[in-house]
Amino acid sequence: MSTTLDRIRGFLAEHDPPTPCLVIDVDTVLERYRTLAATFEGSRVQYAVKANPEPAVLRALVAAGASFDVASPAEIELCLAAGAAPETLSYGNTVKKPADIAFAHRAGVREYVVEAESDLVNVAERAPGAEVSVRLLVEAPASVTPFGRKFGCAADQAVPLLLRAAELGLDPAGVSFHVGSQQLDTGAWDLAIASAAKVFTATAEHGVPLRRLNVGGGISVAYTGPAPAPADYAAAIGAALREHLPGQEPEVVLEPGRAIVAEAGLIRCEVVLVSRKSADDPERWVYLDVGRYNGLAETENEAIAYRLEVVTDHSTADGPVIIAGPTCDGDDVLYQRTPYRLPLSLRPGDRIDILSAGAYTASYSSVAFNGIPPLRTYCIHSIHEGRPPSAE
Amino acid sequence: MSTTLDRIRGFLAEHDPPTPCLVIDVDTVLERYRTLAATFEGSRVQYAVKANPEPAVLRALVAAGASFDVASPAEIELCLAAGAAPETLSYGNTVKKPADIAFAHRAGVREYVVEAESDLVNVAERAPGAEVSVRLLVEAPASVTPFGRKFGCAADQAVPLLLRAAELGLDPAGVSFHVGSQQLDTGAWDLAIASAAKVFTATAEHGVPLRRLNVGGGISVAYTGPAPAPADYAAAIGAALREHLPGQEPEVVLEPGRAIVAEAGLIRCEVVLVSRKSADDPERWVYLDVGRYNGLAETENEAIAYRLEVVTDHSTADGPVIIAGPTCDGDDVLYQRTPYRLPLSLRPGDRIDILSAGAYTASYSSVAFNGIPPLRTYCIHSIHEGRPPSAE
Repeated sequence: MSTTLDRIRGFLAEHDPPTPCLVIDVDTVLERYRTLAATFEGSRVQYAVKANPEPAVLRALVAAGASFDVASPAEIELCLAAGAAPETLSYGNTVKKPADIAFAHRAGVREYVVEAESDLVNVAERAPGAEVSVRLLVEAPASVTPFGRKFGCAADQAVPLLLRAAELGLDPAGVSFHVGSQQLDTGAWDLAIASAAKVFTATAEHGVPLRRLNVGGGISVAYTGPAPAPADYAAAIGAALREHLPGQEPEVVLEPGRAIVAEAGLIRCEVVLVSRKSADDPERWVYLDVGRYNGLAETENEAIAYRLEVVTDHSTADGPVIIAGPTCDGDDVLYQRTPYRLPLSLRPGDRIDILSAGAYTASYSSVAFNGIPPLRTYCIHSIHEGRPPSAE
Repeated sequence: MSTTLDRIRGFLAEHDPPTPCLVIDVDTVLERYRTLAATFEGSRVQYAVKANPEPAVLRALVAAGASFDVASPAEIELCLAAGAAPETLSYGNTVKKPADIAFAHRAGVREYVVEAESDLVNVAERAPGAEVSVRLLVEAPASVTPFGRKFGCAADQAVPLLLRAAELGLDPAGVSFHVGSQQLDTGAWDLAIASAAKVFTATAEHGVPLRRLNVGGGISVAYTGPAPAPADYAAAIGAALREHLPGQEPEVVLEPGRAIVAEAGLIRCEVVLVSRKSADDPERWVYLDVGRYNGLAETENEAIAYRLEVVTDHSTADGPVIIAGPTCDGDDVLYQRTPYRLPLSLRPGDRIDILSAGAYTASYSSVAFNGIPPLRTYCIHSIHEGRPPSAE
């Protein structure tokens, strides 16, 4: 059976598109979704559209029965255009204008996440009767890309917000939280679920029982380092649920984005320049035609260290490199602290594959910084579905 | 006489475009260009297109006699479409593919900046006879947005590169360097010009006299803090030239981007949410409809602290705030260490103006992260040119 890399590289060999480009293998997206759905059996798997909003990805996930976490009216439109039923969408962004809520309501979106009273009141006015969850600010061991304190409120606010939701004629469904994207510590959910359980207890004491617990995203992917398997996350989250919410069995919602699409994507790029800054410099600088501003935003602070594979044949001798992007911007340096090594025979024109690059890449691209176009995406489908690999 | 702010706010009052949006006052662009050209009389002022590539900005600068620093084929096309003569363009990006050089050569671009031999050989092959400058890696006191070591090579490489350029039939014009954007220390040029002078002397000793010194960008703008005036930079650079290149009077080229367009632009945005994370939190979180991924990329690490003005009338009492953008991304927090205060009566729906936001904003916008569209730009022209203020 062909692997993700075989299929993507087969497409690249046949079509030889201009670099840089991102190729998404839609079969792999589906396989990752099905693995998560099977591992977290009984939970709702709500794809975080922001990770990769390609129409072909959304259509495949709709067909597989996924739900969707959307952040804006445009993401709602994309999901509906891909065939999603509006009741499978959850408006997870707590930063939304009244007009955005009204748009979502007209589109049939029923669930909204809030963290402040003004937003709750807007939801009550613009989406009367909607289900609301309150996002909880939780302490979590640092993820690779932590949220800091940007989202959610403390339990001392969450409880009155949920009670107020009931007063406003809304349906107080539950609590959501997020332990940070690419969360390598499966124990991160324990403390968060303990906090959520306190909110469940407190609102129930006030006659407002909750039924839904959204445990967010954070399921990790192996880039250059290892990551726990989905089953490890499921075991840790299951144990925390049994401990902190014994006998309650709430509806559990997961919001993976990276875990569904990252491994389905590969960026092929080209070496544009290799230089040493001075004759006695131990490191070479390798400049690629892709960088922070046209697809690799998650290399900021070297948070995500992608696996790189040189496509061209080279001698096995290698040496240390600093890797940089193509713009005239000093921040567009991908790796100068993370130790990368590349062949000593590397030359401009050589191709490099950036693995597991399907999440948080193309949609972050700048419109035209330095006149460089956004990262082009091709989505390929398997011959197993009766079609030859094709791009769209 | 009306000021930049008067004109921009007049346009906003009349047209009330959806927020967020950037409004560029083209008169101010011209005035800043003319001030720099007059202050650095005798030097060539080469606008760094990457700072703001709006066609109306480029057309106005072409009409005023500016030259242009371009980073890519797309920027060359924009300048030519705006009416620039190809000989007024300098291809300043040292990261370029052979096809990019060939494109530039066909378009009539005559000057190329290089820092590595492979690039120099590509220029010799694809743009025979071109003028080349070598970019020097210089030590400079930290700028607000430093380049680190990304660009340029040491003098021990620059000299042989320039000699090799002559051997390859190219025209070795000179040396360029950049002391970092928003360089608040006018003394930063002294050490750089001293290094450049050594390269001038060394190549001349080998029979290759140089004639051009590109002193880069770095001229600063007052955001929340003060910045030196153009005359201060001119005095410091002039003194360094007289000291390190006595009697030589090379052609001096400047590459301002920020100093020409920043103060010409204003972003109007809207408060979407104001919340406290818990009842006893000293700070409020203020979420705007503009953030790091749709225009305010330079708030990364809080490098640029923009001046904010609340448009709506408010009580004078204010309090500390953390300011964040509209996406579901934890990094999309604009200011949490820089002390900002906003009115206690601030509410969702209130408008805020972000001042001096004409440089490095719209063109950095992501294509659609979180489904949020790139920052919309309106360019207005003065009635002094016989037209009513109008947008394009």
